Amino acid sequence: MAKIKVGILGATGMVGQRFVQLLNGHPWFQLTELAASERSAKRAYREVMEGRWKLGHDIPEYARDMVIKECAPGLDCRIVFSALDADVAGPIEQAFAKAGYVVSSNSKNHRMEADVPLLIPEVNAEHLRLIPVQKANRKWKGFIVTNPNCTTIHMVIALKPLMQLGLSKVMVTSMQALSGAGYPGVPSLDILDNVIPYIGGEEEKVEVETLKLLGAFNEKGVINAAMAVSASCNRVQVSDGHTECVSVKLDKKVKIDELTAAFEDFQPLKGMELPSAPLHPIVVKMEPNRPQPKMDRDTEKGMASVVGRIRECRVLDYKFVVTGHNTIRGAAGAAILNAELMKVQGYLNP
Amino acid sequence: MAKIKVGILGATGMVGQRFVQLLNGHPWFQLTELAASERSAKRAYREVMEGRWKLGHDIPEYARDMVIKECAPGLDCRIVFSALDADVAGPIEQAFAKAGYVVSSNSKNHRMEADVPLLIPEVNAEHLRLIPVQKANRKWKGFIVTNPNCTTIHMVIALKPLMQLGLSKVMVTSMQALSGAGYPGVPSLDILDNVIPYIGGEEEKVEVETLKLLGAFNEKGVINAAMAVSASCNRVQVSDGHTECVSVKLDKKVKIDELTAAFEDFQPLKGMELPSAPLHPIVVKMEPNRPQPKMDRDTEKGMASVVGRIRECRVLDYKFVVTGHNTIRGAAGAAILNAELMKVQGYLNP
Amino acid sequence: MAKIKVGILGATGMVGQRFVQLLNGHPWFQLTELAASERSAKRAYREVMEGRWKLGHDIPEYARDMVIKECAPGLDCRIVFSALDADVAGPIEQAFAKAGYVVSSNSKNHRMEADVPLLIPEVNAEHLRLIPVQKANRKWKGFIVTNPNCTTIHMVIALKPLMQLGLSKVMVTSMQALSGAGYPGVPSLDILDNVIPYIGGEEEKVEVETLKLLGAFNEKGVINAAMAVSASCNRVQVSDGHTECVSVKLDKKVKIDELTAAFEDFQPLKGMELPSAPLHPIVVKMEPNRPQPKMDRDTEKGMASVVGRIRECRVLDYKFVVTGHNTIRGAAGAAILNAELMKVQGYLNP
Amino acid sequence: MAKIKVGILGATGMVGQRFVQLLNGHPWFQLTELAASERSAKRAYREVMEGRWKLGHDIPEYARDMVIKECAPGLDCRIVFSALDADVAGPIEQAFAKAGYVVSSNSKNHRMEADVPLLIPEVNAEHLRLIPVQKANRKWKGFIVTNPNCTTIHMVIALKPLMQLGLSKVMVTSMQALSGAGYPGVPSLDILDNVIPYIGGEEEKVEVETLKLLGAFNEKGVINAAMAVSASCNRVQVSDGHTECVSVKLDKKVKIDELTAAFEDFQPLKGMELPSAPLHPIVVKMEPNRPQPKMDRDTEKGMASVVGRIRECRVLDYKFVVTGHNTIRGAAGAAILNAELMKVQGYLNP
Repeated sequence: MAKIKVGILGATGMVGQRFVQLLNGHPWFQLTELAASERSAKRAYREVMEGRWKLGHDIPEYARDMVIKECAPGLDCRIVFSALDADVAGPIEQAFAKAGYVVSSNSKNHRMEADVPLLIPEVNAEHLRLIPVQKANRKWKGFIVTNPNCTTIHMVIALKPLMQLGLSKVMVTSMQALSGAGYPGVPSLDILDNVIPYIGGEEEKVEVETLKLLGAFNEKGVINAAMAVSASCNRVQVSDGHTECVSVKLDKKVKIDELTAAFEDFQPLKGMELPSAPLHPIVVKMEPNRPQPKMDRDTEKGMASVVGRIRECRVLDYKFVVTGHNTIRGAAGAAILNAELMKVQGYLNP
Repeated sequence: MAKIKVGILGATGMVGQRFVQLLNGHPWFQLTELAASERSAKRAYREVMEGRWKLGHDIPEYARDMVIKECAPGLDCRIVFSALDADVAGPIEQAFAKAGYVVSSNSKNHRMEADVPLLIPEVNAEHLRLIPVQKANRKWKGFIVTNPNCTTIHMVIALKPLMQLGLSKVMVTSMQALSGAGYPGVPSLDILDNVIPYIGGEEEKVEVETLKLLGAFNEKGVINAAMAVSASCNRVQVSDGHTECVSVKLDKKVKIDELTAAFEDFQPLKGMELPSAPLHPIVVKMEPNRPQPKMDRDTEKGMASVVGRIRECRVLDYKFVVTGHNTIRGAAGAAILNAELMKVQGYLNP
Repeated sequence: MAKIKVGILGATGMVGQRFVQLLNGHPWFQLTELAASERSAKRAYREVMEGRWKLGHDIPEYARDMVIKECAPGLDCRIVFSALDADVAGPIEQAFAKAGYVVSSNSKNHRMEADVPLLIPEVNAEHLRLIPVQKANRKWKGFIVTNPNCTTIHMVIALKPLMQLGLSKVMVTSMQALSGAGYPGVPSLDILDNVIPYIGGEEEKVEVETLKLLGAFNEKGVINAAMAVSASCNRVQVSDGHTECVSVKLDKKVKIDELTAAFEDFQPLKGMELPSAPLHPIVVKMEPNRPQPKMDRDTEKGMASVVGRIRECRVLDYKFVVTGHNTIRGAAGAAILNAELMKVQGYLNP
Repeated sequence: MAKIKVGILGATGMVGQRFVQLLNGHPWFQLTELAASERSAKRAYREVMEGRWKLGHDIPEYARDMVIKECAPGLDCRIVFSALDADVAGPIEQAFAKAGYVVSSNSKNHRMEADVPLLIPEVNAEHLRLIPVQKANRKWKGFIVTNPNCTTIHMVIALKPLMQLGLSKVMVTSMQALSGAGYPGVPSLDILDNVIPYIGGEEEKVEVETLKLLGAFNEKGVINAAMAVSASCNRVQVSDGHTECVSVKLDKKVKIDELTAAFEDFQPLKGMELPSAPLHPIVVKMEPNRPQPKMDRDTEKGMASVVGRIRECRVLDYKFVVTGHNTIRGAAGAAILNAELMKVQGYLNP
């Protein structure tokens, strides 16, 4: 079977690099196009990335000599993965969708639009049914599917198995990694020996995206979940891996063992054999001091959400900690997994 | 006026060092005795502290040549400040109280005993009225007064002005400094590029101590405050200064401005002129990304709790961030301020 | 006696902030002017500095409401302290000198010009005799005096007492603080869990400036010291304080005790009572693991160079470690001390 | 071919863990025994390692349930890899050698003994000819072979190709990772925002071991290389990977290109197909700011020494930076590679 050609929009940033890394040797997708700003266009990827590649190993061989193009339709591929900055992503992604491309986007711009799927395959696969709605509404040949914010993703994966227990309130405090701010991102003088208890726009994203993700799809669209979410987001001195302290209110009272089992048994994609899907989307650690970003962020190649410290909460009902990789499962890996789901569900056919 | 002689029990640890530093030049108290474990006894303080003094400047001149004694009654002083480890503090502090000393303790051992004041001068000064009860109960000539856990202190100072608004629920997630774990404390390999979402016993302390601190004193003792508190405690790579994300439920709905004013107007010790009391126990920062431990921990010489990001909470009613120095206001400074309050209220008289 | 009016060029950067901090309450100098780029001009200092003040306490009260001016002659002051970036410092400093101002500059631009003093008061005070040469050469009413690079300063202070022992070779490897790169400076993702073994232009500065600083003044100018200097410069994850491992070749062989005494006895400014001069420009620590930047950078209010680990070297003759504050003694404090020396030597008279 | 049975002495420490990790799936060696202190003996490895496994992934499956034994002969294996602490390694390693085992040791105890090989396969493979001398001298059935200190190894690999150019002087300043101090090792409060310019015994090891490693073997033993080495060793806040600034004096003057080629062409093990040998023992990075520990420590699975910044030195002749993984090539990987060399040279035959 011929591989499906894919491109990356915004290939030079932190998330763009992850796409390049994760698509290396992908069994279904073949990277044929790298696109970035006008400043980088027409130059070899390795040349533009000198001093900017931050992933701990060198640029994969297969991408080093690829010549960067501009972010405009005309790229030779079926899917574009978008890691564009929010200040430019809007019109560019629309132009690609209009021109017939499948846009799998990590950017925030279209996430909350009523006819755009905000997707986590394990959580709300049925939201892909918004695609024909979107194409009809907008008279586009292609379409846009988005993945959530990096903090939202790991929390919502952990919340999904609690939906059957009547989840009604969620309080989360995050301790987020530096790579989430991109590069150059957070100045070292700001974070050395410090915590920054603020990340612009982040709390709003977590509070709002969660409701759409956990919402039900009916023929008219997605009905937001009826629950309250409150987020407090902090930046800490960690390279990769967000850690989140979550408290929840559930209608149904259960034992801690049952809650633990609900997390461990959560395997909604079982049998679908998506190449990037983790065997266990939620991995539970029983040690009292886990999960920790340094120890757990690479679980299941960075695609798992790692949960621990499941215990009762004196204000709501239960609390736990969830950690996960913010630029793999929280960004590039999320968009790739979304595209894999679209493929098996037939959405990539012309 | 002659100064009151004071000693330090456990003078070599992180909190012991802070006592030495903060009592340097104190207008009311004169440090006459340093006590520590048998291992350190009979040696000069500077000699024992070689390689163990961690406060960024050298040992104050006045304490360098003092000879360390053992932690047993017989010390030439009226007050002993206790920075003892919990595994030894219990009987030692009792022996001193029995022998007639005033014990102002930072140790957790006696905090929750019914006839022992757990004191923050700005919060529950009237709890000192437990002292005669304690002396009568135990037939002691002296007595023990305790200060709360470092995380509890800053949160409770911030909660106190909210009591008049009908505070009923508190959810807190802390990001705590390394100095709170003592020395050698947290291994560097454990915390570099990491968060540890667990501190043994800490969450329980915050949840329980808060109720006693905000409780009312009546003739029979302290009635715990009727509220629910839930804490999630994390260790982060910060040297000094705990940061806490707090959400609260209040019976009375107020505007953010009113809440801000309640924090800023909180000055219950005004006019008492306690030497270690901050002019403003709560300092409010209006910048969106404050308070930060690196920037704000030394506010009012480390004796203030710095509050910011006051805003509405979608699950409870309001949320804010509070930061404060964990070994000054959160430990040694707390015990010294407690002793100052005891002095002006006449409890130091024989 | 009326204070001398002074201004700061480049008042918003890391070094500019240090000038503002160190000039607060200066007994001889009164800060009357803050100047910065066009972008900041005409706005209050506190407003421009929101989120950019990095010194751990808030902006000193006296400077908060000062209105920033542009960096052009016309400022109401006698001295301008320059913390300008190298890409603009050249012509601006010349314009001020031409217009009659005394320019005490931390910028690199004029350091190596033959008629410009590159000054450390304890090292080469006699180089101030270049001032009349400079004024004559350039037909300027004012003049420029420079201080060396932050790494050079601490090393050269430590080397000066060795000159009498026939210093002929110097090998230095530095581990430099983040604040030396300015703000935003080094991205946190680059330095977390890392060392960067390169700082652009730094090694050359250390190698070249040292020769001029230790050179002799004769009527024609400064004759470079006859010695070889080799520098390797590294960036490490430290906020403030450079640490340097130095090896030296001396013609005269001495005992380690004598070398130690040479450092400790070095007090060339004794009796001059310059307000910013440290009592001991070189402080020797005898503990085997000192000096350390965290523990020693604030010695003598950040104006001392702290030396330790004095021992024999198997390749050259002796080696030692020197640590010092890079933005106090290494930058702003250096320029202020230079101005103080100029004052007592009469160079500030019109 | 049956695999050779191997055991690990000191299997619970930082280096012991690396042995467990690196021997997982080794093509020639099969791990059959884990040994550690009496305290750990008779317990399952996973149980003892709870909270002590620090390598970022969990304990490899194959070792989890192995039961730890005491460090005494009787183990079922041919080779023991020793990661023992220096305070116990001496007599234990001797007992194993006497009992007929091949001891491949990372401990410092026997490194400098005249009849014990101190080995780096790429540097001094011929030193293995000390083995029969050792066995004869000591009347042992087995023998001990050692690998050098972690800082020494990477430097000496980089120095070896310079021997042909007449290497006579070496000056090195190291910036060493925290894992080199073991676990719990360096307290976080000591290294956060700091450099510690001292590591007990380290400088001596680098200075002395280098001479033996680069020495020639003749029938009587090893003649130390005739050169001077001076080391300054520092601890910095890096998890893994030592960085070393090296200056050298060479009799033969060469161009920088020739020096670079000497490093790149160094492949003394080519064709031997040792499983742990890196394809290129020295990898040269041409970017001006490399090597960096975070980016380069895992080069060639942590078995390469990465060199960069090759340039002239104004005091000696040339200087460069070398970085390498301190617990892989610098410890456990070194001992395994040594055993592989012994195998192909027939020293493992009974």
